Amino acid sequence: MKNQTLKIVKIGGNVINNEEALHSFLKDFSVLAGPKILVHGGGRKASEVSAAMGLEPKMINGRRVTDEATVEVVTMVYAGLLNKKITAKLQSFGCNAMGLSGADGNCILAHKRIVKEVDYGFAGDIDAINSEIIDVLLQNKVTPVFCAITHDKNGQLLNTNADTIASEVSIGMSELYITELNFVFELKGVLESIDDKNSVITEINLEKYKQLVAQGIIADGMLPKMHNCFNSLKKGVSKVKIGDASLVNSSTKLYTTLSL
Amino acid sequence: MKNQTLKIVKIGGNVINNEEALHSFLKDFSVLAGPKILVHGGGRKASEVSAAMGLEPKMINGRRVTDEATVEVVTMVYAGLLNKKITAKLQSFGCNAMGLSGADGNCILAHKRIVKEVDYGFAGDIDAINSEIIDVLLQNKVTPVFCAITHDKNGQLLNTNADTIASEVSIGMSELYITELNFVFELKGVLESIDDKNSVITEINLEKYKQLVAQGIIADGMLPKMHNCFNSLKKGVSKVKIGDASLVNSSTKLYTTLSL
Repeated sequence: MKNQTLKIVKIGGNVINNEEALHSFLKDFSVLAGPKILVHGGGRKASEVSAAMGLEPKMINGRRVTDEATVEVVTMVYAGLLNKKITAKLQSFGCNAMGLSGADGNCILAHKRIVKEVDYGFAGDIDAINSEIIDVLLQNKVTPVFCAITHDKNGQLLNTNADTIASEVSIGMSELYITELNFVFELKGVLESIDDKNSVITEINLEKYKQLVAQGIIADGMLPKMHNCFNSLKKGVSKVKIGDASLVNSSTKLYTTLSL
Repeated sequence: MKNQTLKIVKIGGNVINNEEALHSFLKDFSVLAGPKILVHGGGRKASEVSAAMGLEPKMINGRRVTDEATVEVVTMVYAGLLNKKITAKLQSFGCNAMGLSGADGNCILAHKRIVKEVDYGFAGDIDAINSEIIDVLLQNKVTPVFCAITHDKNGQLLNTNADTIASEVSIGMSELYITELNFVFELKGVLESIDDKNSVITEINLEKYKQLVAQGIIADGMLPKMHNCFNSLKKGVSKVKIGDASLVNSSTKLYTTLSL
């Protein structure tokens, strides 16, 4: 049964913010063979719309707080504008994309993040992936395109980290497929030295990961990303790669492969 | 094969603009037995967001022109905010809703309205309904929720009249189902006299329709709505009803039924 490979690709702000980069990425993604899923982050459009509407971003300890006005804006921008633009563009390339939030088909169930020291507002932590309905789409040659919005089954939409969505969707689909998760970001992979964009560490296993963290080579924003990656591998995802957009059209051999 | 009834319900601004009315309608809709589809219009939120963003509505001959900024706003509001709010609310009532634009799964293919005297901008006229993929969802107990956005398969999203979407989706699904189309609006049905809200004409056939138009009883905004209704009946839809929200929970016998 479980002999087909499913590719899950996550793109972030660096691809989304640049019209040309997005066009070129989606063209490459559309011709990827076999079942596939796209997960996209938000980019800077939500901040632009917020600013245009005169909303002030709320931050606590440098992290964005999703108040009611903000969850409305991110729902408009992520689930509306970006998700539908990406879907329409994939359709133009002959890929039968279907743009979805976690509320659609109850694909991604989450709960509002528990308040400890800080109330991050309508931020969602994921509880379950509806692999059954996602598989119905894949079996019918539909490519799901997930934005970073989930729901709590009580009618509340929740802003959710797109890396985490990609990771949890990959884990959930591992019941049914051999899953390969690709994180596309601004660099060619995990770098030995941040000053040398080509100093890609091509293979990182769990032991090497711990070393790199101890050495301070993996730090800051890379920490949660790597945590997501290893969490995926531990929970059934077969392969995780990190690299830039050329990862998807296989025009490069320079990227990072993670393993346990 | 074609022995199951599919209900298509269209709601407009009067339900969407009122939080309580929307809640109550969606609760009723969620318990409707059998396969069903919801189509929703826009309401006034798009104008509010446009105004908040400092965009001036463009009108020609009293009709809205969808310029590039406007198609972005309606995509945000219709396909993002409203569609996902409605979907999340239906999920909270136990209805497995999936919010879709016409681009998603290539469900509704359209083309930019041909420019004759006036260029209405990114307004879409419908070419085809993908009844196959919509049926896949219905067969899997998913309730599609369509917003009034379509696409042209060339990457362009198009603002499309929600009544027309409801009508064309009903016609398209008539290949596979016995279809019943319900238009929910602010009145109890087509009225004999606009001053008497209870003067509902309960049955209108094509002949009576022509009489009512000649008499000026059906006029203005009702004309395109009735045109959509009779067009649906002519093209395979089994039943069309027009009434207020109580049409859906069957608590009223006062509504208009149309037939050929």
